[in-house]
Amino acid sequence: MSPLIEIILILVSAKVLGELAERSGFPSLVGEISAGILLGPALLGLVVPGETLEIFSDIGIIALLFISGAQLNIRTFSRSEKAGTVTAAGGIAVPFILGMVLGILSGLTLTVSLLIGITLSITSIGISVRTLVDLRQLKSDAGTLIVSAAVIDDIIGILLLSILMALAAGTAAGPAVFLPVLLTIIFLIVVVYAGRRFIPWLFEKTSRAHTHEMPYSAAIIIALATAALAHGVGLHYSIGAFIAGLILGDSIRRDRSLFDSISDFAFGFFVSIFFVYVGLLFPPFTSEVVSVFLIPFVAVAFAGKIIGGYAGSRPFLAGRTAPLLVGIGLCPRGEITLVVAKVALTAGIIGSVLYSSIVLMVLATIISTPFLLTWGFRSMEQARGAR
Amino acid sequence: MSPLIEIILILVSAKVLGELAERSGFPSLVGEISAGILLGPALLGLVVPGETLEIFSDIGIIALLFISGAQLNIRTFSRSEKAGTVTAAGGIAVPFILGMVLGILSGLTLTVSLLIGITLSITSIGISVRTLVDLRQLKSDAGTLIVSAAVIDDIIGILLLSILMALAAGTAAGPAVFLPVLLTIIFLIVVVYAGRRFIPWLFEKTSRAHTHEMPYSAAIIIALATAALAHGVGLHYSIGAFIAGLILGDSIRRDRSLFDSISDFAFGFFVSIFFVYVGLLFPPFTSEVVSVFLIPFVAVAFAGKIIGGYAGSRPFLAGRTAPLLVGIGLCPRGEITLVVAKVALTAGIIGSVLYSSIVLMVLATIISTPFLLTWGFRSMEQARGAR
Repeated sequence: MSPLIEIILILVSAKVLGELAERSGFPSLVGEISAGILLGPALLGLVVPGETLEIFSDIGIIALLFISGAQLNIRTFSRSEKAGTVTAAGGIAVPFILGMVLGILSGLTLTVSLLIGITLSITSIGISVRTLVDLRQLKSDAGTLIVSAAVIDDIIGILLLSILMALAAGTAAGPAVFLPVLLTIIFLIVVVYAGRRFIPWLFEKTSRAHTHEMPYSAAIIIALATAALAHGVGLHYSIGAFIAGLILGDSIRRDRSLFDSISDFAFGFFVSIFFVYVGLLFPPFTSEVVSVFLIPFVAVAFAGKIIGGYAGSRPFLAGRTAPLLVGIGLCPRGEITLVVAKVALTAGIIGSVLYSSIVLMVLATIISTPFLLTWGFRSMEQARGAR
Repeated sequence: MSPLIEIILILVSAKVLGELAERSGFPSLVGEISAGILLGPALLGLVVPGETLEIFSDIGIIALLFISGAQLNIRTFSRSEKAGTVTAAGGIAVPFILGMVLGILSGLTLTVSLLIGITLSITSIGISVRTLVDLRQLKSDAGTLIVSAAVIDDIIGILLLSILMALAAGTAAGPAVFLPVLLTIIFLIVVVYAGRRFIPWLFEKTSRAHTHEMPYSAAIIIALATAALAHGVGLHYSIGAFIAGLILGDSIRRDRSLFDSISDFAFGFFVSIFFVYVGLLFPPFTSEVVSVFLIPFVAVAFAGKIIGGYAGSRPFLAGRTAPLLVGIGLCPRGEITLVVAKVALTAGIIGSVLYSSIVLMVLATIISTPFLLTWGFRSMEQARGAR
């Protein structure tokens, strides 16, 4: 099938199933991921994930995080930094420890138990951010804290992962272990501090360009370049794109038609391809996946993030529902977990049963989180309305 | 180099050189094509055209022709059908005959002379349409006729080409030769007649969707699908996209923010990638390309289209400058000519010197047309102003 036909098929099924989801009262990403599961190797096998679709999907997650960052006010967001760090720490530590304990209790080796802990600790930011956008809750207290914690979660998680990988390889003993940490710190300083002056200055210049679409192109180029820079130092694309969005937010929100146009670029095209791609990544369903390990594993996946996120955010939020929602918002695991599992499978550290359990755990968190968040935010609003 | 880095490099250089071109008084596509020649195998060799970039470029030409079609009124455009057909016929016949005569006079075989005629006869629609958009002359009498003639030129040219190829292959004697003709007729009937009712109906339905970006996504899906259908019957993507744009034009123009948003999707992202890709397709410059044949060949390339286009459009336009501009507007040759030349080179029908001459001819028409059109439209406006 030619790439153009694949993209048409992806967009049509994403939009049809997304619309069905919306009409049933759920965020449209549920329909889009289902479209990917339907079209991909898991079920029909019509579309296979590959390099060409991957770049469309990468631009999708970059556009999603960029526009989400641009919707938030950088000053409001900075204020949630402390709360975000504490919440992220709770949301990483609790599932990591619970996962390791579950592994050891199930009779797995220490290395495999460590790996189980890691697969449970890194949140996939896309699912919750998109759900918050769809529910118009991105700017709520709980919403802002979910995003802030998920960003910091990703930074801490990827640092931990690269340190562990360096240690496991054994070759990089000593100071080299701290290279990813150093690179991340340099990236954050350069982008957040220097970029906060330079990027808006550069962007303002483009509004005086002779080319009509220059501000639009410039915003997209800045998002892609910052994302590529983050990826270059070992972080996920989404972190760079989100920071670029935060920095440019004030300039972009000022021009409503520019904001809407970039928002259409994201949600009307690339973001849908990203979520279908998430669905395409699921391997074929086989009967061998049903293991005794699966049920406690999925339970720990939810319990770990919910307990950790709740405990971490409780001091910063009013009431009990909001911190619970933060915990739920941190539940989705995504591409990073799938990549870790795939690497471990290929290296022979885990077998296909454990691999399938990890994939099903990811699937369970991705599919349930939008439903749980929808339900949670609605009942919080109803409670407010009743008061 | 990762695809994302390639896309960032392409967009940055396209925007910088495009802006420089605009500031020097020329259409920005001149800068964008130069960016491709600079980055690609012709000069620096930093970016190599491949499958992933090709799909971005394909979406670019589809978006360009879709939005150009949407700017024109389908009823006004239909009125120029007869003028377009006569002009297209002139613009194909004259360069074809001149090219064949030149080939025979230069001592080439009949087959090679025929091939020379073909490489001169098919106009590349993208260059002139983009120039007209940049000069805000798309809706002028000459502009509309250029687009209409270029569309019909492409249809006739590709039909001739497929019949010739079938005849040359020898296997498809008899009725099979007329298969492309039949497919094209079926395509035009289905899309123009059935589609003119069905497509706007489908599009109107999307405005009642729960998903906010649905009309935007639907317009893009319709453009891509109609383009893919055209490609499926052997026509160029651009023909399908242009017809889809014409059909949906009334619905899209009604919603200004939708029109602007799709226009940004095109000119702010994909169209720039298309024009850079045009530049990427040029092979490395070597000294062997300078042949005695080159100068008369390039002269015939311009003379053929200008004479044919002028003669064909003279009865339908007032004055002499407008028909001259139509002739100039039909001059650019593009990917189809390059593909024909590449096939002929690979099959051993032509050697590398002749191949390089064809490439340089394409380059000369692509680079000069925007300058010639800019100069022509400006002097026409000045003459009007002086009266």
